[in-house]
Amino acid sequence: MERADKDLAFMLRYENVAWYENGEVRILDRRIYPQRVEFVVCKGHQEVARAIADMVTQSAGPYTAAAMGMALAAHECRDMTAENQTEYLKNAAFTLSHARPTTVGRMELITGGCLAAARYAMDSGADTAQAIVEHTVKANNIRYRKVEKMAGFLADTFPDSGEVMTQCFGETIVGMMLKVARERGKNLRIFCPETRPYFQGARLTATVCRDMGFDVTVITDNMPAFVMEREGIDVFTCAADAISLDGHVANKIGTLQIAIAAKYMGVPVYVTGAPDVGHKTRDDIKIEMRDPEFVLQAMGVRTAADGVKGYYPAFDITPPELITGIVTDVGILSPFDLKSYFDRGSRGEFEMII
Amino acid sequence: MERADKDLAFMLRYENVAWYENGEVRILDRRIYPQRVEFVVCKGHQEVARAIADMVTQSAGPYTAAAMGMALAAHECRDMTAENQTEYLKNAAFTLSHARPTTVGRMELITGGCLAAARYAMDSGADTAQAIVEHTVKANNIRYRKVEKMAGFLADTFPDSGEVMTQCFGETIVGMMLKVARERGKNLRIFCPETRPYFQGARLTATVCRDMGFDVTVITDNMPAFVMEREGIDVFTCAADAISLDGHVANKIGTLQIAIAAKYMGVPVYVTGAPDVGHKTRDDIKIEMRDPEFVLQAMGVRTAADGVKGYYPAFDITPPELITGIVTDVGILSPFDLKSYFDRGSRGEFEMII
Repeated sequence: MERADKDLAFMLRYENVAWYENGEVRILDRRIYPQRVEFVVCKGHQEVARAIADMVTQSAGPYTAAAMGMALAAHECRDMTAENQTEYLKNAAFTLSHARPTTVGRMELITGGCLAAARYAMDSGADTAQAIVEHTVKANNIRYRKVEKMAGFLADTFPDSGEVMTQCFGETIVGMMLKVARERGKNLRIFCPETRPYFQGARLTATVCRDMGFDVTVITDNMPAFVMEREGIDVFTCAADAISLDGHVANKIGTLQIAIAAKYMGVPVYVTGAPDVGHKTRDDIKIEMRDPEFVLQAMGVRTAADGVKGYYPAFDITPPELITGIVTDVGILSPFDLKSYFDRGSRGEFEMII
Repeated sequence: MERADKDLAFMLRYENVAWYENGEVRILDRRIYPQRVEFVVCKGHQEVARAIADMVTQSAGPYTAAAMGMALAAHECRDMTAENQTEYLKNAAFTLSHARPTTVGRMELITGGCLAAARYAMDSGADTAQAIVEHTVKANNIRYRKVEKMAGFLADTFPDSGEVMTQCFGETIVGMMLKVARERGKNLRIFCPETRPYFQGARLTATVCRDMGFDVTVITDNMPAFVMEREGIDVFTCAADAISLDGHVANKIGTLQIAIAAKYMGVPVYVTGAPDVGHKTRDDIKIEMRDPEFVLQAMGVRTAADGVKGYYPAFDITPPELITGIVTDVGILSPFDLKSYFDRGSRGEFEMII
């Protein structure tokens, strides 16, 4: 079985990186990529939830991991009655969806889709685990097509020759925006803030940019304002972990202050994604606070002395006044007009998760 | 001989950390402190200049290191004629002053003072190296008294109980502001951005705060805006590597975007220091660009893949519109009114270097 369209193979090093097969889920360990290519092997769906909580994978990775975790759960309960299997899978869906607090709504859409696929398989006597895997591959391919549309709208905002700044690692949209920009012959220099404390910008985004043949420069997280001023950034763009209907964007910690600096420097801010019906206002977005000790080290080496505290919000919330446009698969919308996304026929569902 | 006033002993772990004795200068290696306490030993003044360029020490450290380098140079040329000694010391002053580009003017004040002390010693037949060391200790003690006045004005801006954010490591002013705040019984939580790529905030500032008995929290450099919003920072304060007469502040990279975020969040920004007569406008401030490879590692561990570029401006420039006040030894001045500093009888000389 193909994991994704052939012409999307360029992205397979970075996603479809959680995969169910023969009673286990293997997840590419992005915490150490690209220094080493290693996989975390999960023998039960709770282990998949733990891997998501531990940030073995991030960006869109957890959504695929959760779906593969559902396939593993289906394997675990394969000998139960249909009724008990359904109950078991519902519990697994809850566990996997709640691995991290900020993305519960999107996770429930993913695991809900897997539940539906499993029920359909049960009714027709098919292998439920395999049905969930096939459903996930199909859903991912639909998502790729939508993200490609989104990347087209985003690339419209790029100059033919100029500088683009990103933040953290937006996975599919990063690969797609580079693919579209390359197809259009755009000559871009990409600046990637390194994204402490996990260095996703330095490790993941910069590697994709390099692999796609772009000139890419990593900066530390205290440099974006300087780079905007000195290097003339044309566009700042990032993905989102949640977009509330009132135009607030939850994304990797640091997005807020880059957006504030961009406003000050006159740099447009384009956020890719789709509004979440589950988040009506910013107050509905829960910011995950992670283990504070983690910011007291870098690449595994301790930085601060004993007795010094850490502090680790995984995300921040950027208000609509700082956002030039939300780039969706149906076009670029004002952050103050996100309800129109649904008027245009989109369901804002998990296919749009980037 | 006392290196500093006895009641300033608390700071001796962090400064007076370059010391000339018996034909060598020993400099505390702040690149690895507090994980390890090691000294770089310089056998010639050119080695001192190299150590400054390599950032073995920073903040006020290079000024003391340059002065001790002058003492070493005096030792090197002690058997020459007075005329040749003067020539040798002038060349050494040039070498030491130009170790890093952003602070040349202040360095010339330091080395110029050492030259004057050496000439006075030659005239009176005294040991020139020893005379330079004694001059430096005396000048540092004068500076401490002035910085203590400055710290008093800065502490006036702190609430009796609240949150203060710093940036990088301002050395003397950090120790002094904490000393004064403690004397006044202020109950402060201090937030220190870690300050990539060298982690001075995490390693140095946070350690001083802890040693002075304050509650201190290290955050990564992408968190200041979030922390201002969530934790209610009362004051952001930082030192300066150069303050131009038109109110622009050159300081550690990242200061600019923290000041932009502070303006957006309504947090006052107080910069400690004195205007430099050598920098009339921001155009007179030269920003040092350091080895770009250095941002592609953290604590000695490589972060990015091969083929990815780095970018490393050591400082940025914050414009006066983002600064609430410049805290000097004669009071808090508007950044738009720095010429009045000299009207008030101050010479803006190196004693004020913090």
